[in-house]
Amino acid sequence: MSRDVREIALEQAKQNGGKLEVVSKVSIENKQDLSIAYTPGVAAVSSAIAEDKNLAYELTTKKNTVAVVSDGSAVLGLGNIGAEAAMPVMEGKSALFKRFAGVDSVPIVLDTQDTEEIIQIVKAIAPTFGGINLEDISAPRCFEIEQRLIEECDIPVFHDDQHGTAIVVLAALFNSLKLIGKSIDEVQIVVNGGGSAGLSVTRKFLAAGAKNVMVVDKVGIINEQDSDQLPPHHAEIAKLTNREKRSGTLVDALQGADVFVGVSAPGVLKPEWIQRMADKPVIFAMANPTPEIFPDEALEAGAYIVGTGRSDFPNQINNVLAFPGIFRGALDARAKKITVDMQIAAARGIASLITDEDLSTTNIIPDAFQPGVAQVVAEAVSDAVLEKVGV
Amino acid sequence: MSRDVREIALEQAKQNGGKLEVVSKVSIENKQDLSIAYTPGVAAVSSAIAEDKNLAYELTTKKNTVAVVSDGSAVLGLGNIGAEAAMPVMEGKSALFKRFAGVDSVPIVLDTQDTEEIIQIVKAIAPTFGGINLEDISAPRCFEIEQRLIEECDIPVFHDDQHGTAIVVLAALFNSLKLIGKSIDEVQIVVNGGGSAGLSVTRKFLAAGAKNVMVVDKVGIINEQDSDQLPPHHAEIAKLTNREKRSGTLVDALQGADVFVGVSAPGVLKPEWIQRMADKPVIFAMANPTPEIFPDEALEAGAYIVGTGRSDFPNQINNVLAFPGIFRGALDARAKKITVDMQIAAARGIASLITDEDLSTTNIIPDAFQPGVAQVVAEAVSDAVLEKVGV
Repeated sequence: MSRDVREIALEQAKQNGGKLEVVSKVSIENKQDLSIAYTPGVAAVSSAIAEDKNLAYELTTKKNTVAVVSDGSAVLGLGNIGAEAAMPVMEGKSALFKRFAGVDSVPIVLDTQDTEEIIQIVKAIAPTFGGINLEDISAPRCFEIEQRLIEECDIPVFHDDQHGTAIVVLAALFNSLKLIGKSIDEVQIVVNGGGSAGLSVTRKFLAAGAKNVMVVDKVGIINEQDSDQLPPHHAEIAKLTNREKRSGTLVDALQGADVFVGVSAPGVLKPEWIQRMADKPVIFAMANPTPEIFPDEALEAGAYIVGTGRSDFPNQINNVLAFPGIFRGALDARAKKITVDMQIAAARGIASLITDEDLSTTNIIPDAFQPGVAQVVAEAVSDAVLEKVGV
Repeated sequence: MSRDVREIALEQAKQNGGKLEVVSKVSIENKQDLSIAYTPGVAAVSSAIAEDKNLAYELTTKKNTVAVVSDGSAVLGLGNIGAEAAMPVMEGKSALFKRFAGVDSVPIVLDTQDTEEIIQIVKAIAPTFGGINLEDISAPRCFEIEQRLIEECDIPVFHDDQHGTAIVVLAALFNSLKLIGKSIDEVQIVVNGGGSAGLSVTRKFLAAGAKNVMVVDKVGIINEQDSDQLPPHHAEIAKLTNREKRSGTLVDALQGADVFVGVSAPGVLKPEWIQRMADKPVIFAMANPTPEIFPDEALEAGAYIVGTGRSDFPNQINNVLAFPGIFRGALDARAKKITVDMQIAAARGIASLITDEDLSTTNIIPDAFQPGVAQVVAEAVSDAVLEKVGV
């Protein structure tokens, strides 16, 4: 099927010349219409905003528009394919923003991969938009770019590749914990993969109350003792994780673990290792399209709950559950940032969409097309903003 | 009426939250749709472009999308009101692009007025778009910004404030010359106003064959002898104009002139000065909303043809006749630049929309809503591109 889907996508792109269209909300059929949509009428709108910049949030498309910005440096599994080739992905993302949360979204691909230039450009175009979704920017540049932009922009900036999946994994974890009857502060979690998604998953877990997380990279368990030899983003995560100061490889990390989260590579989780884990092991194997372990293998080896990134198995960890509603909520609340609290609220919102009645080991997370997902996430996010107002 | 129009514009902006919406051309209603619009299907489109960048013109929105870029430094008559306040104008412009030529258009307002930064930013976002319409950037920065971007980008860059009106004035001139029975190389033309529009009008006239043009600024007739004291863009135009090396003020320039073009200030053309002009004087008084002279006064003083920027008098010189079709033609022909030849072709296209039968002193130029304007302009422009291929 995957091959067919690719052929159809290519045909569609040829037919449509891209996936998006910009349409006018106002009809322009006579001179009066023209003088309202453009000069002289438009001057009244511009003058109002010149007096009070905040009115841009009411009177312009800033109110409902997010830029999807990429430098094409880490596009899907394709790698550093550059600006033009990144466009179809950004268009797809924009189409999903509109479909799932009514957010207008404009792809912007950049002909530079220089960290400072990207920061400067995004800051410069920021007045146009109500939010910036960074997309497919390679690590470690993505960390500094996002962090600096969060600090220096007055609109929300969010690198979905880092946080989107992490938020949905956290939602899946919340519901899994209910099923296995353990609490987040007592479970031992192994995150396999020290890239941007792995680090974000880890931070989200910690922020949500996890006390015992280990991050495993190609070189082994990330360990505070090795700080000198670690890249800065790993040295930082080492301080926050692995409180037992374990060393070794994935197989060592899994000893007694309750939860495995893979954001790594196909087939790296051996079935026999699951048997080393604690009672009722939870496995999120999100390498795509080939997961760290296939669900049937994992279940056979003793896994209690298995989630993957794929739509053809139960429990799909799909970031489309998160980003549309997160930006919808941030725009509605006119948030200046998407904080970790807002992200955890989003995860709780997603988890809440599975009722206790419906919750089962093969149904821990809603389907992308379950009605109302983005609305529930948006409300959770904007409630989290409002709670923080004045703090 | 103007006051009402402003109130309506403000109400509409409040109701709509901006004038534009980004919609998806593809429907996303099930998992199959999702895997076509996004992963894994979209990877096929990205891979194809990664192999051949030119496919971006077929497979992405680059094909049909123009950015309307402003730094908010010279917005309408409002001046330097900044990025946010410029948005409504850019949205209006985008709405016109769509309405008149089916061009998708994205407003981008910039939080910088630094020439080098603007150049760098526009170059960086250029892979996203099929063309860049610069808008409401103040002189003299706009000259360097446009010139550099034309040289350094591989997509068309066009500052409409400079060229849009100029092209429509040229169209109006072509048809006026038919009526007064004079040829472009023999008429004496006075351009009052040495700003970006005045200089562009002058260059367009020269490129179209005019031999005798004088530019009059606040300090008087621009004169090669004064080159030392002139700003660079005036020193340059001085070399190309005023071949009689006249000096003095507007009243001196008008002595014996055939055509007056005002891109200057309200009421600066005195009726009695028209009597100093040649037989059948042609007056284009485009200061807006109050022209250099009102049509009734001008006609009473002996003017043969009068055009203004206003929709409530005959012969409206409206740049909406030009820019939508120009970009339509440039996109259709995948032009890398919008050359002066293409601009003159656009002017001839606009002029051709008035048949000899319909041509009269009160009907020298089509109405903005005359069907087919943009199509005729687009064809003229893309024909001009094709003529140049291989040259």
